[in-house]
Amino acid sequence: MIVKAVERVGDKVRLLDQTRLPGEETYHDYEDYRELIRAIRRLEVRGAPAIGITAAYALAVALKQSGDATRSNIEKLAAEIKAARPTAVNLFWAVDRVLGKIPGNGLNSLASALEIIWNEAEAIHEEDRLMCQRIGEYGAELFKDGDTILTHCNTGALATGGIGTALGVIYTCHQQGKNIRVYADETRPLLQGARLTAWELKKAGIPVTLITDNTAGMVMRQGIIDGVIVGADRIVKNGDTANKIGTYSVAVLARAHDIPFYVAAPMSTFDMVTESGDRINIEQRSPIEVTGLFGIPVAPAGIEVYSPAFDVTPNELITAFITDRGIIPGGRK
Amino acid sequence: MIVKAVERVGDKVRLLDQTRLPGEETYHDYEDYRELIRAIRRLEVRGAPAIGITAAYALAVALKQSGDATRSNIEKLAAEIKAARPTAVNLFWAVDRVLGKIPGNGLNSLASALEIIWNEAEAIHEEDRLMCQRIGEYGAELFKDGDTILTHCNTGALATGGIGTALGVIYTCHQQGKNIRVYADETRPLLQGARLTAWELKKAGIPVTLITDNTAGMVMRQGIIDGVIVGADRIVKNGDTANKIGTYSVAVLARAHDIPFYVAAPMSTFDMVTESGDRINIEQRSPIEVTGLFGIPVAPAGIEVYSPAFDVTPNELITAFITDRGIIPGGRK
Repeated sequence: MIVKAVERVGDKVRLLDQTRLPGEETYHDYEDYRELIRAIRRLEVRGAPAIGITAAYALAVALKQSGDATRSNIEKLAAEIKAARPTAVNLFWAVDRVLGKIPGNGLNSLASALEIIWNEAEAIHEEDRLMCQRIGEYGAELFKDGDTILTHCNTGALATGGIGTALGVIYTCHQQGKNIRVYADETRPLLQGARLTAWELKKAGIPVTLITDNTAGMVMRQGIIDGVIVGADRIVKNGDTANKIGTYSVAVLARAHDIPFYVAAPMSTFDMVTESGDRINIEQRSPIEVTGLFGIPVAPAGIEVYSPAFDVTPNELITAFITDRGIIPGGRK
Repeated sequence: MIVKAVERVGDKVRLLDQTRLPGEETYHDYEDYRELIRAIRRLEVRGAPAIGITAAYALAVALKQSGDATRSNIEKLAAEIKAARPTAVNLFWAVDRVLGKIPGNGLNSLASALEIIWNEAEAIHEEDRLMCQRIGEYGAELFKDGDTILTHCNTGALATGGIGTALGVIYTCHQQGKNIRVYADETRPLLQGARLTAWELKKAGIPVTLITDNTAGMVMRQGIIDGVIVGADRIVKNGDTANKIGTYSVAVLARAHDIPFYVAAPMSTFDMVTESGDRINIEQRSPIEVTGLFGIPVAPAGIEVYSPAFDVTPNELITAFITDRGIIPGGRK
């Protein structure tokens, strides 16, 4: 079964508590928007699309609770929700999109405002679901029965409103009856591959083998990997792609072993303003994620750490982009 | 200051308790050989050369305790020490070498037997120290003031009786007054790079930056790495080299960025019987090292894990071997 990160259940919003994974599968049904904000803040839901959908639903929950359908009140609630994670662009986008549906000159009734907001939030969710599905369908054409795919980080049902991007391709192959095996990089420092990707694929009944990031080169050399699929945080004009740290190394290894390297991402990930990857500003993560695990030090106190959140894979290492509008060839010869 | 993993102090053996690193620097002076065996077993001392030296010293400690210099008693004690870690080849070799110095037809006195054993154990230690020093001297010629070196795993003073192999080169550069910077891969699953390499380099006053294994490709692409040095567990006839998992990926990345890739190892690491790397049997580590950290699960229960202890880097990716007898060119063009 493919898991659902976020779901509308009547007037409530159901979240899978991802902070408890992979140990426990716990769902919470929220009818208090302040608790939803708290859930977003403590990473119970993660992944840009899933956060955006949750935030849009949260506005409906908030309006019902407040009972005040004036424009000024809805705007106040929206601002509160948008403050849940100040750098989550998708969260702002989703809340603003819902807000844009509310007539500027006041509303007739609470019921009609609620209907508008729920409908628009569901539309956002449904579009994301379809987008994942289309990426999955286009991408699945690239793989055949018996293939083994290596992936990095988590870009699956846990991060989106649907079946995911890179994992969406894998789920679609599986749904089509192809026997697909997956090698999942654990993805240090935050181990999204171990905690999330391995968990959701196992739950969906797809054979998955967990490896340390250090092992990717060796399994490629053994000839057991037929293709690599990763997601993307941003794809710029020349095709250079920012994604989770380690993606670049995997791309270099894939080329060295003549293994296709695919980036699966919606068209909305393309940034046609930024010319090339060297213009992308790379966020630095906290050293603590590298020097300590669960509060236990694994490196000497005060050690210098370089821990970029992302790296940039140049287009020349990318075989193709798998998008919701079809396959776009990459720059790899 | 370059740390000492093992040291003879009068009739005692001083070990740095590596299980307490990087949090605490604790030394134990052992005068009970059973405690030394326990220390070897619980990985207070690690690295093949350091374990061998400790075991040789342990035989002297054991003989003094037992007070019985008969051949049969010494053999019994030797067998007990050799059982400390049943797969540590260097441990058998060192104990057998010391044992070989004991005349087969009985001994004149406890004092003379003790002298023979301490002397031979010290000879083993001194040879290892000199071997490291020679590797360091040959290797240092390859680097110049201001160079930045990337290394993987731990091959330093903590693993040997001297300054180490790969780190021996770095220490020697530093002693020669060259300003050398180091990037240390953390080296999953056991994090020897974070726990040990970063610790001992920092203690020696050498600037070191800790990175996740995922970050090696990115720093190479940034153009800040002048060379890579790793150790070796075994180098076979055609130059293929078995070393800690992840070494192969680093070698591929180094070639892709036109960065020299060096293997630093004593001549004793060369296995001239095995023809090529594909004949090397790769030990599998326990999945628990990948699925849990400090007993806390980071992957779903029952997940399949592939966790080889080593990988094999083909000679064609190696620029040169830095040995105690000089530099041997590798197969990289």
